[in-house]
Amino acid sequence: MARVVVDVTLKPEILDPQGRAVQGALGRLGLAGVTSVRQGKQFVIELEGTLDADRRASLDELAATLLSNPVIEDFTLTVEDAG
Amino acid sequence: MARVVVDVTLKPEILDPQGRAVQGALGRLGLAGVTSVRQGKQFVIELEGTLDADRRASLDELAATLLSNPVIEDFTLTVEDAG
Repeated sequence: MARVVVDVTLKPEILDPQGRAVQGALGRLGLAGVTSVRQGKQFVIELEGTLDADRRASLDELAATLLSNPVIEDFTLTVEDAG
Repeated sequence: MARVVVDVTLKPEILDPQGRAVQGALGRLGLAGVTSVRQGKQFVIELEGTLDADRRASLDELAATLLSNPVIEDFTLTVEDAG
């Protein structure tokens, strides 16, 4: 079984109001000196069999289109286990 | 500057309808054999100065209370750079 993690983050130039809210809350709750919080999404995907080059390519394409919005988001795909 | 990543995931016994929807979509869009998709949140936190034991402890506590819901979620805290 293969296991892949896709992390989706907002591009640096895109404002992240949720992250700003968390940053403010961390400060109010006693953690000083927080300069930035960015909130993203994480998908943990498990697949039958092995992750060959074809499946890896189609996963890359789906991560760029279904899982993230290329206008405002970047993604990183990490193969934790190729099966 | 210190940099910490907090990954928040649903506990394994909690249903994840968003993950199920993504799993179905991956299959329809041509990626066969996806057995599970779980969707989580990721917080990338940057702090001034260094991450000493006190700040690390308060970050741990805030990750367990503010950033995640301990009833339904687990979190992992990764220090990418202690400053």
